[in-house]
Amino acid sequence: MSSNHVQGTVETVTIGPIQGSVKHYQQVDDLRIPVRRVNLTNGEHFDVYDTSGPYTDDAATIDLDNGLPKLRDGWTKPEIAGPPTQLAWARQGIVTSEMRYIAAREGVSPELVREEVAAGRAVIPANHNHPESEPMIIGKKFAVKINANIGNSAVSSSIAEEVEKMVWATRWGADTIMDLSTGKNIHETREWILRNSPVPVGTVPIYQALEKVNGDPTLLTWEMYRDTVIEQAEQGVDYMTVHAGVLLRYVPLTAKRVTGIVSRGGSIMAAWCLAHHQESFLYTHFEELCEILAKYDITFSLGDGLRPGSIADANDEAQFAELRTLGELTKIAKSHGVQVMIEGPGHVPMHKIVENVRLEEEWCEEAPFYTLGPLATDIAPAYDHITSGIGAAIIAQAGTAMLCYVTPKEHLGLPNRDDVKVGVITYKIAAHAADLAKGLPHAQDRDDALSKARFEFRWHDQFALSLDPDTAREYHDETMPAEPAKTAHFCSMCGPKFCSMRISADVREYAESHGLTDIDAIEAGMAAKSAEFTESGNQVYLPVVS
Amino acid sequence: MSSNHVQGTVETVTIGPIQGSVKHYQQVDDLRIPVRRVNLTNGEHFDVYDTSGPYTDDAATIDLDNGLPKLRDGWTKPEIAGPPTQLAWARQGIVTSEMRYIAAREGVSPELVREEVAAGRAVIPANHNHPESEPMIIGKKFAVKINANIGNSAVSSSIAEEVEKMVWATRWGADTIMDLSTGKNIHETREWILRNSPVPVGTVPIYQALEKVNGDPTLLTWEMYRDTVIEQAEQGVDYMTVHAGVLLRYVPLTAKRVTGIVSRGGSIMAAWCLAHHQESFLYTHFEELCEILAKYDITFSLGDGLRPGSIADANDEAQFAELRTLGELTKIAKSHGVQVMIEGPGHVPMHKIVENVRLEEEWCEEAPFYTLGPLATDIAPAYDHITSGIGAAIIAQAGTAMLCYVTPKEHLGLPNRDDVKVGVITYKIAAHAADLAKGLPHAQDRDDALSKARFEFRWHDQFALSLDPDTAREYHDETMPAEPAKTAHFCSMCGPKFCSMRISADVREYAESHGLTDIDAIEAGMAAKSAEFTESGNQVYLPVVS
Repeated sequence: MSSNHVQGTVETVTIGPIQGSVKHYQQVDDLRIPVRRVNLTNGEHFDVYDTSGPYTDDAATIDLDNGLPKLRDGWTKPEIAGPPTQLAWARQGIVTSEMRYIAAREGVSPELVREEVAAGRAVIPANHNHPESEPMIIGKKFAVKINANIGNSAVSSSIAEEVEKMVWATRWGADTIMDLSTGKNIHETREWILRNSPVPVGTVPIYQALEKVNGDPTLLTWEMYRDTVIEQAEQGVDYMTVHAGVLLRYVPLTAKRVTGIVSRGGSIMAAWCLAHHQESFLYTHFEELCEILAKYDITFSLGDGLRPGSIADANDEAQFAELRTLGELTKIAKSHGVQVMIEGPGHVPMHKIVENVRLEEEWCEEAPFYTLGPLATDIAPAYDHITSGIGAAIIAQAGTAMLCYVTPKEHLGLPNRDDVKVGVITYKIAAHAADLAKGLPHAQDRDDALSKARFEFRWHDQFALSLDPDTAREYHDETMPAEPAKTAHFCSMCGPKFCSMRISADVREYAESHGLTDIDAIEAGMAAKSAEFTESGNQVYLPVVS
Repeated sequence: MSSNHVQGTVETVTIGPIQGSVKHYQQVDDLRIPVRRVNLTNGEHFDVYDTSGPYTDDAATIDLDNGLPKLRDGWTKPEIAGPPTQLAWARQGIVTSEMRYIAAREGVSPELVREEVAAGRAVIPANHNHPESEPMIIGKKFAVKINANIGNSAVSSSIAEEVEKMVWATRWGADTIMDLSTGKNIHETREWILRNSPVPVGTVPIYQALEKVNGDPTLLTWEMYRDTVIEQAEQGVDYMTVHAGVLLRYVPLTAKRVTGIVSRGGSIMAAWCLAHHQESFLYTHFEELCEILAKYDITFSLGDGLRPGSIADANDEAQFAELRTLGELTKIAKSHGVQVMIEGPGHVPMHKIVENVRLEEEWCEEAPFYTLGPLATDIAPAYDHITSGIGAAIIAQAGTAMLCYVTPKEHLGLPNRDDVKVGVITYKIAAHAADLAKGLPHAQDRDDALSKARFEFRWHDQFALSLDPDTAREYHDETMPAEPAKTAHFCSMCGPKFCSMRISADVREYAESHGLTDIDAIEAGMAAKSAEFTESGNQVYLPVVS
């Protein structure tokens, strides 16, 4: 492990570069774009999109008490009529510094970024009060993003653990994090996270509001909810989940479900609606909410409070009724210049996944879709990172822009640091698999670089190019720990005699050196060449001469 | 852990039922069909398809030295003209005991089993000399099956470990196992595995043949290969991978690949073809091979020696040229009454997966497809159970009948016992997700039973119904180990106040007791009911009265 730790008042966090790579910055005009640079043993290098912030920069000084440098503080904020949001700027044809930064990270033109934001097909969650964050974009024309949920509950975890989980999650590739804390010290936990987070931070304000009324949802009011939103907005929260689509008349639609309402926010609002026999205050005060969010340029994440919590409940009337309402709210939010994304399920069998994307795009003007999995089966608690990773890859291929991770502890308990890492890596796999399937330019470059390293037995490069170099190396070490094994032309899976890669390399070497690279050549001269191959000693097990 | 261990000459293996369940037998005429019976805390029970054999039966005596009881020895083998194979019987309209056994396990009619086998769309791998095995079927109209590879290499592992891996893999749900041993003691290892295996066993005979010529593939001959096949056939191997589709003219098609030939068998045969400038003896002697396999009723698993080993090489000319040849060989094998399945890739990005199934079905007369993953990306060594689990779920949904598992050690080393379990569970997830997506009758029953238990806070039932009760319980214990927590109406994920399931159950209870189960009812009487709900104390956090 090359990682280290740094201490602040709150806790120690993990610092230092990921094994086999260094932090590198690409200078693009006035902007310094961070990448994780993998220096390969063959003299080449490969740059990877980097979400980890200064924590993986050996040259950076980390001071948790003072927070990260305020990267975006000096950036120009062009004056326009109305609240300045990325959406408003984009609509007026203005390319912001955030958009240029993103274009460089994604390897696309700044104009594409502006166009997608202007159309509402992509969002840039960047609260003016969170200048520490490195701009990123969520939209289906860009790399699929992943979110990691952290946050303590009344039963478990401390502020310290949560700050480290944020650093740890972004180290392994989380593009945003959500602080879902529900216990004590919500405000303070969030402050520590925001000041130290290099990625956008999302919250669900109703959780803190509920704490203020001591857990009784019927005591919630618009005023206290509004004040909570402003409190969080001032701190710098970049996007907020708002379950404004849970309408009174939808609640009975959940009565016959196998698992009722499984969204915390959804169940809170359902209880409020029933108790008051009124439409939810999130719905009736939605325009006021838009005005607040516009002021800070906070992005709406319109919550799916009625998402299915089991295979049996997938794609039912309750779920799609709410989705239609989210479509109406999307139009209202955008008319206020507020950026919007839409949250999605949940638990959905594979054959019902694509319909979710189709309806979301149709009803919500192609606002970026942000889904939790979905889990493709209910029968594997303790492995729900995998059940949901399957669904996540499929829904992302269909157009979902950001995937909310699920950890192995889903349904069973609060994830620890190891669970967070497994969840993040699983979702990086799903997101990257979707990027490949969508034909995102250059997405395959990393696969090719790693496979080439694998075929050439450059073990260190194979580890370094992987999503988790530490574990890849550790697994290899289990059976072949010695350094010479890291250049050996076989591994313990098959042993030296049965290494297909090795035999195959020999076959290729032979074929190429004899011009046998197409069928015509082999048809023409194979007999002679074959005799030669045999005479040369059938060197299929000799090391490839490079 | 309720599991225990039993000792034989060779080693100890894991015995005893899986936590929360007992072995149960359903008597169907003269047949005793094993199931894993989960007795639920609400008095109901749920039976699960069971691959674990007598090892999970507390009433069984396990004696590794003498092997399992020879279950099929007394079963009638109807006399017919020509070698008696399940295919030959099925074509003559005969429903064998194996077919009836399978029909009971799958919950379908014996006639459907016979029809699918007769059409060559399903296979029953059951060597006459492996009477210990419990019959099972591989075909797209039945539950998707999974295979676990075990076997030592020259570098690692012992016979003892491999027998335990077989018991362990079938405990968690492996439907077949393949013994891929390549080191010393291949014959002896296989004998121990066969005599103690309750599931069909597959091999790749070329591995043992290569050992006999001390690892030089150019010294292989048809005669020694044939003798090896007969040796293994006599022992009772149920299906054999034969790379007879690797033709001389296809070898140059791999020269420009990123990862050349990655199949061990494929690279061995390619080297042989090049050295001898002859068509592979597997191809030229294929009819003789059919005669041998027919005699024992061994199923062909026609190997994909040129499968892609990287995203870059997926669906290329080499891969599909070989697949066409496998189609020709399928017809020949079936004309000899030999059952056939076709092996498939490998590494394939999601958008290219379905084409593999389409071409396989078109060219190979819908012979059951048996794929290795495929991995949906190359960039996650140490997590290739997940990269491949994604591809496996998708390819199974498209019609693949059996999935060969991939463990976290893929590309890095030989899997240990823990890796085997993770690989098996991951593939059970993929297979089950596909069963759901294909609409297999009753596939969703288990999801529904588990989700219902989850919603009703029957934690023990949730664990017992899951694919891995031990780990599910262990994760729950991490934060809430006390027994009362196993009936608590919340968990540590959200804590008591934020449990959506709990709130939702309360909402439902209220709605149902007030007739609010449809929109009309709520529109009509909601105002009155709402007042009542408030007066009754807003009991959204009180436990549900059941």
